[in-house]
Amino acid sequence: MIIAAIEAGGTKFVWGILKAEARDRERPTILAKGSIPTTSPKATLDAVAAAIGEAAEKTGAPEALGIGSFGPVVLKRSDPDWGKISVTPKPGWSGVDIAGYFRLALDLPIAFDTDVNAAAYGEYLWGEARGIQDFIYLTVGTGIGGGVFSGGSLVHGLSHPELGHIKMAREAKDKFAGSCPYHRDCLEGMASGPAIALRWGRRAEELPPEHEAWELEASYLARAIATYSLVLSPELVLIGGGVGLRPGLAERVGALVGEELAGYVPALAAPGRLEGFVKRPALGPEAGLIGSAGLAIRLRAE
Amino acid sequence: MIIAAIEAGGTKFVWGILKAEARDRERPTILAKGSIPTTSPKATLDAVAAAIGEAAEKTGAPEALGIGSFGPVVLKRSDPDWGKISVTPKPGWSGVDIAGYFRLALDLPIAFDTDVNAAAYGEYLWGEARGIQDFIYLTVGTGIGGGVFSGGSLVHGLSHPELGHIKMAREAKDKFAGSCPYHRDCLEGMASGPAIALRWGRRAEELPPEHEAWELEASYLARAIATYSLVLSPELVLIGGGVGLRPGLAERVGALVGEELAGYVPALAAPGRLEGFVKRPALGPEAGLIGSAGLAIRLRAE
Repeated sequence: MIIAAIEAGGTKFVWGILKAEARDRERPTILAKGSIPTTSPKATLDAVAAAIGEAAEKTGAPEALGIGSFGPVVLKRSDPDWGKISVTPKPGWSGVDIAGYFRLALDLPIAFDTDVNAAAYGEYLWGEARGIQDFIYLTVGTGIGGGVFSGGSLVHGLSHPELGHIKMAREAKDKFAGSCPYHRDCLEGMASGPAIALRWGRRAEELPPEHEAWELEASYLARAIATYSLVLSPELVLIGGGVGLRPGLAERVGALVGEELAGYVPALAAPGRLEGFVKRPALGPEAGLIGSAGLAIRLRAE
Repeated sequence: MIIAAIEAGGTKFVWGILKAEARDRERPTILAKGSIPTTSPKATLDAVAAAIGEAAEKTGAPEALGIGSFGPVVLKRSDPDWGKISVTPKPGWSGVDIAGYFRLALDLPIAFDTDVNAAAYGEYLWGEARGIQDFIYLTVGTGIGGGVFSGGSLVHGLSHPELGHIKMAREAKDKFAGSCPYHRDCLEGMASGPAIALRWGRRAEELPPEHEAWELEASYLARAIATYSLVLSPELVLIGGGVGLRPGLAERVGALVGEELAGYVPALAAPGRLEGFVKRPALGPEAGLIGSAGLAIRLRAE
């Protein structure tokens, strides 16, 4: 089966055409892939549609398109605004009908979810969370967001989780005001890539592993994961994203989650249980694109 | 259908025998009800089983028993410890097989969940959350805990949510150390009945509505509910429990949730959307018992 996929991000749209094996236990192969910088809605969507159309002439026509989009988006099937971006500070993008645009432009059935739910779904089908019914996929980069699996289903609710914006108890020694324009010192405001850069005056990539920035980063992420764990009771937490994929960070975070929980959750307090509780995603930076393909494959199977 | 129900609490076990109508849209009628103080496991369970057995001679024999229990409990069906209390500081109760005891003592099929999930289920079937797929039932009293509905199902996960123990960002003016023996200043440590009594030197019941304690209480609850909302995206939050049912508290909390979210969740930022977002449960203090009966009715229907 040939499937098209788009990971619609705030800075770039990554598109791909993938070949899925008959048995969906095997990870789809990427036949073609490219990326388009996110500018105005029309220019961006037109360029993505054109690139997919052109690539499809070589790969064969896709049967469906899966989209994992930056948010906030409307996911309620019964909502007439399903498939649209809702109110966003990103200029020009509020109300843009992403799903509707591609349904018309490419004449394909569309599966649509958040970028992070798509990544979580990819990890569920073909990655570290294979067969795990309750887990969280957290991405830490320019922003912080998360996809949530509960009882074997992606969590939507009224809209969708916004894991990056929970208010944080501060580390006493940390005087940084926080960088979130809405909440200042929420998790994203304290631990995203831009927050790190503002606090230390250097970009995260430039900070060496022994820099104190990383211990602080790990402690905020561990604190947030302890909170998610008390709310959702997951079996596993994956950390991806530009900052999150940094070698050693997931392990460092995992080692601190137990301290935050202080033995309170017996199912996690058992000796050794927290080993491997926090991991890097297996699909790495491609989780979003491959997961979006997974959403489209599921749509075809419905 | 005659159904037995137990709300197993840390201070008392409330038992009931209920009559459910053929159409489960109608709230069951309580035919008999009583309560037993929680002492040693054997004395408590024996007394509850005896009371139900005796009452059943008048009401007719129940077909099933629903139990909503204080936690932590083991809910995973595949776990050999299903239906047991896990590790608890409550003397003598670690590992007690509550479901197993009543299956043997009363010879009935057993539905088993947390007390707060049972209460949430009661509100879903017959209360304020009727037909709502994503909501939270929070109880604020001696402790703080919560039941979670996501996508139309009760959330279990690895064990079950422990909503009362999330770490809180403090109000700057609040110097109270917190009363939780595990985390000190988690939500339960800052806003439970015992925390209120310790902070103000008077029991919550004795504090008049205009006392500053209530504004602080509302702000911590609103902050916690904002966090749950960012993680779970619920449509509704119900607040029950001895402190939570205090007149006016739910409204006061609801008015503050919007400030905590600072307009970030568009689906909740729409004008008027937060009106009625936080409510008192319709079944009041009986939500746990009636909800436990609901779990048993569902078990019979499976």
